[in-house]
Formats: sequence, structure tokens, C-alpha cells
Amino acid sequence: MSSVAKIRLFLDHPLAEGQTVPLGRDQAHYLTGVMRLGPGAPVAVFDGRSGEYLAHLDEAGKRSATLVIGRKSAPLRPPPDLWLLFAPIKKARTDFIVEKAAEMGAARICPVQTDFTNSERVRRDRLQAHAVEAAEQCGGTFVPGVDDLRPLARVLDDWPEERRLMFCDEALAGPVSALPAKPSPWAILIGPEGGFSPAERARLHAHSAAHAVSLGPRILRADTAAVAALALWQAALGDWR
Amino acid sequence: MSSVAKIRLFLDHPLAEGQTVPLGRDQAHYLTGVMRLGPGAPVAVFDGRSGEYLAHLDEAGKRSATLVIGRKSAPLRPPPDLWLLFAPIKKARTDFIVEKAAEMGAARICPVQTDFTNSERVRRDRLQAHAVEAAEQCGGTFVPGVDDLRPLARVLDDWPEERRLMFCDEALAGPVSALPAKPSPWAILIGPEGGFSPAERARLHAHSAAHAVSLGPRILRADTAAVAALALWQAALGDWR
Repeated sequence: MSSVAKIRLFLDHPLAEGQTVPLGRDQAHYLTGVMRLGPGAPVAVFDGRSGEYLAHLDEAGKRSATLVIGRKSAPLRPPPDLWLLFAPIKKARTDFIVEKAAEMGAARICPVQTDFTNSERVRRDRLQAHAVEAAEQCGGTFVPGVDDLRPLARVLDDWPEERRLMFCDEALAGPVSALPAKPSPWAILIGPEGGFSPAERARLHAHSAAHAVSLGPRILRADTAAVAALALWQAALGDWR
Repeated sequence: MSSVAKIRLFLDHPLAEGQTVPLGRDQAHYLTGVMRLGPGAPVAVFDGRSGEYLAHLDEAGKRSATLVIGRKSAPLRPPPDLWLLFAPIKKARTDFIVEKAAEMGAARICPVQTDFTNSERVRRDRLQAHAVEAAEQCGGTFVPGVDDLRPLARVLDDWPEERRLMFCDEALAGPVSALPAKPSPWAILIGPEGGFSPAERARLHAHSAAHAVSLGPRILRADTAAVAALALWQAALGDWR
């Protein structure tokens, strides 16, 4: 992060030094109306593709503003090739899972509908906005993409052959098993509040890519399980090593 | 958990088979008014001391109710001797840290005031209620106690000689270092949003009990860091092994 700019902004646009970038209405309002920045104020910006830049506010109106992109201050640091698959739960906790996945360094966030998933609608754009905000806050230079909700069965039908699946099975109460030291790509699957259905569990245990993992003797909420699983994976195989 | 009772209730009272236990007004209202249970309805209860019991609602009025304690359905499963020290942050996230600490199996929750802690008031009773609710939800038979807020400096002055301290230093960006395989007791310390002050960091790094640990290359919010640190500790030294 820049030592000068206190505000970090994600711009969904490929950036380069010397560019002039017009801001959308929401971001212009945020900088000038909410944060009360005037012309010349420094802002750290990142595009999720090439890294972070130190920019300065140029024109600054209430509904429009322009940034001039200065020197590159950090390279792109992409997370490991790790997907987080989870069954959406109550709104606040679903938002939380997305925020945590971005902070913990998931590369892609995949809401899946399981047999026992309660929520059947997911607003992808709202979840994506949470991922952006988390990346802005945590100093990341990458924003994980959020997929549309898909049925778990369909996701497993199309499973990419080389991708390993850390399947967090709340019905396993034993010790945490060690993950095989296979390099990326990987995915983590967190179940819904009611657990997986017997049919889903049977299919997952039989799946050639799947490694069933226990997350301890207590039953974890889905949001807790997501952070815990991401921590174990990052420490064993990811960029926390 | 019992396969019969869907409701779990913590009773802050030593329980034994055959006892008759009058409920307080809030718990009576919850069972009869909110959950609409009538006489004879099964309830799983635990006291945090001796285990879990299958109980039945006996008398059931709107403001008072009595439970008859039946057979013991699970022994007490205390978590490892692990404290979670954290600097309180915004209300919702502080509540969240307490909930997660209970789910993840901390034995004691210790809010500490650091040099950069924003919140100076903590309602211990409200946080304790969150810990109880989390234990009820997660199938635990133990409720971690929540301490009053104390200055970190004072806590370190009185540090028990044999207790190791996993100090999550957000200024360390390196790999996660392995924890020494020392048996309990341990504590985890999570910093406030603004990080530790230079004086605090110097004191912590010099502390004979402290093991500084990095939680990866991204900056984690305090609530994320708490869950991640608890997961790493439980998998390495706790009851997830």
C-alpha cells in the first residue's frame, strides 16, 4: 500500500502510468462527496490485472471526477488458483463469506445450490461489490470473481479433471486430515447449514478429485467453516507458506 | 446432540439426572412463547460443567416453566486450554469474534485495550450472551467465559509463566511459522484495526512467552484473523488434530 494515499479504489479498467481515467458516478461521489477529497488528493488504485498505482484526483465535481494515474506502487499479486464453493445462507452471512474469501485469498467465489440450500436467489452483482470492497480494504491487488449460483450437481458434472476438491464434511468428526501436497488448482467446498444430503455426501466421497476433511469436533456455521478451511489450505498449500 | 430434541439450551446451574429446574423468565418465554413448546416437549440442555442432558418441559407458562432433567446424552467436552485475546472493534464485529471464538473452541475470551483500540467500552454481559448462543448452536457442551476489558499492558504484566502466546503480528508478511509443539496452555493475541503500536510490538517481540506469527500476505480484518488463527492453532496443537 502507498504510504501517502489512505484511500484505495478498485477500477474495473486496465490501468497504466500516465493515463487519465474518468470515474463513474458512484466512485466520483465517494471520493468528493463522502471522503471530501479535492483536486490533487492522492488515491491508491488497482485494476486487478496489473497492480497498484498512485493516482491523483484531477477534476473533481459532485457527479464526475477524473483520476490521473501516476507511478506503479505494487505489482499484481494474484492469489493461488483456489475456488471457494459455498451454499448461500442468510444474507448477512453470505455477504460475510464473500468478504472473507476475498481477504483470505480465494481466486474465485462460486455459490452453489445444494439439496438443503435455503436461499435460492443470489444477487451476483451485490456479492461482487462485497468482494471489491474487501479487496480495497485488505490491501489486495486482486478481486476474486463471483459466479452466478449453480446447482452443485451441475458443478460436479462439469468438474475440471485436474482440480482437487477439499470437501469440508461436517459429518466427519475426526481429526483434520492432512491435505495431499498437490499444487494448485484446488477448490474448497463448504456445506449449507443443514449439511449435505446423503446423496450429495455419497457422490462427493466417491468423487475422484475430492478429499474429505473434518473441521474439528464442534459444528461450525458455514461462515466460520469457510474462514477456517481457507486458513488451513493457505497455510498448507497456498501463499501463507 | 440428541436426535430427539431440536432445541439446545445452556443452563447456568449444575445439572444432574432426575433434577427439576425452574427456568428464568427469558428462557421460559423463549421455549413457550417463541418456540411454542408445550408440556412434555424435549429440550437438550447443558451446564458447561458436566455435559448434555435430554430434558422435558414440565410446567409451561408464559413467564415461568420447569424442566425435568432426564438421561445424560453427552459428556462434557471442554476445549483445549486456549485463551483468545483481542482488541474490541465495531460492535457487530466484536460480537462476531466472540461467537467465532466459542464455535472454534477457545476456553476463555479476553478483550484487551491496546494503544490503538478505538472502542473503550465493552458490555461483558452482552458478549457473554453471544458466547452462550454460539455454544447452543454449535453443539458444544462448554461455554467460554468472557472477561472484562483490560489494558494489554496490564495483561502482559500479569502473564502466567507457563502460558505460550501466539502473537499475530500483521506487520510480519512472511510465511506462517510453525508453532512450537508445546502442550497447553496457550493464548492467541489478535491486534486492533490500526495494528499494534511500536511500543507494544517491541514488548511483544521481547516477551519470553510470545511466538510471532504471520497470517499471510494480505491484511486481515481482526474478525477474520481471529478465526484464521484459531483454525491454525486447533489444527496444529488443539482438538482438531
